[in-house]
Amino acid sequence: MRIAVLGSGTIGQSWCALFLAAGHSVVAYDPDPAMEGQIIAFVQASRPALESLSYQSAGSVEQFRFSKSAAETVEGAQFIQENAPEKKHLKHELFSEIEAHLDSEAVILSSTSGITLEELQVGLRDRSRIVIAHPFNPPHLIPLIELLGNNETEQLVMERVRKFYESLGKVPIELKKSVPGHIANRIQAVVWQEALHLAQEGVASILDIDRAIANGPGIRWSIYGPSQLFSLAAGDRGLEGFIKHLGPSFQDWWSSAGRVELNSKMIDMIRNQFSHDDQDLDSMKMYRDELLVKILEAKNAIENRKFSES
Amino acid sequence: MRIAVLGSGTIGQSWCALFLAAGHSVVAYDPDPAMEGQIIAFVQASRPALESLSYQSAGSVEQFRFSKSAAETVEGAQFIQENAPEKKHLKHELFSEIEAHLDSEAVILSSTSGITLEELQVGLRDRSRIVIAHPFNPPHLIPLIELLGNNETEQLVMERVRKFYESLGKVPIELKKSVPGHIANRIQAVVWQEALHLAQEGVASILDIDRAIANGPGIRWSIYGPSQLFSLAAGDRGLEGFIKHLGPSFQDWWSSAGRVELNSKMIDMIRNQFSHDDQDLDSMKMYRDELLVKILEAKNAIENRKFSES
Repeated sequence: MRIAVLGSGTIGQSWCALFLAAGHSVVAYDPDPAMEGQIIAFVQASRPALESLSYQSAGSVEQFRFSKSAAETVEGAQFIQENAPEKKHLKHELFSEIEAHLDSEAVILSSTSGITLEELQVGLRDRSRIVIAHPFNPPHLIPLIELLGNNETEQLVMERVRKFYESLGKVPIELKKSVPGHIANRIQAVVWQEALHLAQEGVASILDIDRAIANGPGIRWSIYGPSQLFSLAAGDRGLEGFIKHLGPSFQDWWSSAGRVELNSKMIDMIRNQFSHDDQDLDSMKMYRDELLVKILEAKNAIENRKFSES
Repeated sequence: MRIAVLGSGTIGQSWCALFLAAGHSVVAYDPDPAMEGQIIAFVQASRPALESLSYQSAGSVEQFRFSKSAAETVEGAQFIQENAPEKKHLKHELFSEIEAHLDSEAVILSSTSGITLEELQVGLRDRSRIVIAHPFNPPHLIPLIELLGNNETEQLVMERVRKFYESLGKVPIELKKSVPGHIANRIQAVVWQEALHLAQEGVASILDIDRAIANGPGIRWSIYGPSQLFSLAAGDRGLEGFIKHLGPSFQDWWSSAGRVELNSKMIDMIRNQFSHDDQDLDSMKMYRDELLVKILEAKNAIENRKFSES
């Protein structure tokens, strides 16, 4: 299958690596011709990680082509993953450039995190075949894709999009309603807010709160979300039993959860507690990426084994 | 070293498994003599998981003894891990029963999640050597231990307690201030609140929101907490750069984060969307525990290797 990738910043490069690893043909466009080399370097560097995750063509650039024309890029492509800068007018210009060149079945998949589908649709004559497909960083590794259509989305399009991402080993989740930040960023936001609130209250340092999360609830959240975890903890009593038992505690924690502001006082606290210079960013990044792949490998191994056993 | 475990519900059993696996001698007390068999069964069942995590005496009950007397249980023990039911008067009764029998250096470690240290101290003549050491379920696997002392805590006690848990491969985090739910439960609470809020708003089903977490941000949170992740994402710009770039989005998500109540309407929604009967609890539990061990193994492998290389 041919896939077009429009815009080749961090997200675009990561999409290229994924699509190529899965054996698709990829044509990428970026107004900056220097990006060709960067994409190729990124795809090649992604090889060990994607190989561990069993992508047959991990790291291969054989089926990759860089194009200097957005219109030419989309010709013959079934899916167009759009990652232009987060400015409405730029995306609209891009859409008007490509729309006449789209295959009749082509679907535009926008990686946007902050622009609504309705705002995107303004830039298209055919509003039925654009979908928001918001990845979670880094897209070539993290399974989640947040999908959003609306009442103008063609009925079969969403189904095709979902199957496309599933075929790539991803976990597409369809949102039924538009909300700022979709799901994942909103959940991240409330975690960070309470973490900063507790640091501000002097309960523990920013770093200790981070360590508490990554050595406690965070480990479990890589396995199941909160409702499934609580339901499992309650055993035969189920989630309702859990609520009967611990509901009052949750209400108590909710009522004392904090609201914070990213004002100068907060920035000062962050500067005091969390010096950038103290951290060895390179080894932290290596640790993050290595562990990420190991977790995904473990999930795949257990899920596939279960699948083949059933 | 000898360790006393008081109370042998889920938490007490899990502590026994951990202490024994690390090679300590354990005496456990429970008013219900039938618990002896349950502890032994739990410890033996924990063998594969604790073996994978390199505990030399995983699953062994050679150094285990069950006692019918709380007073006798604590004799000769250096640490007393207390897991009595979450009722103040029960814990006070237990303390008055054991205090005269404690070794001069013994420290009481309370697993309480809901009773304050000040309330616990009311039950003791010597208030200096009790510390809250709140584990995260299941304690024999999850590294986090939330430690809390106060101005009556003997200076050296906290240091000994921290070293004790570190020697068990745990990650003790010292809270500087008492707050309901400590850190981890409060963070869990805000996640669940926003998850329920999004389900209530019709953005996605409870199960899809859970899947979004476990296939997106949850995976990263098993590696680092939010501040470190955001700081890494910002690269050379650091957390301040991240805030400059994405601060307005976070403020926006925070201001629209929801407050929910666990009232009958919410219970109805949960009942409709999340039927207990639909779920294969046994395979879900097996998947959770198997993956949990694999993630901890991966963390240990990378951290030890880094440690031995440096």
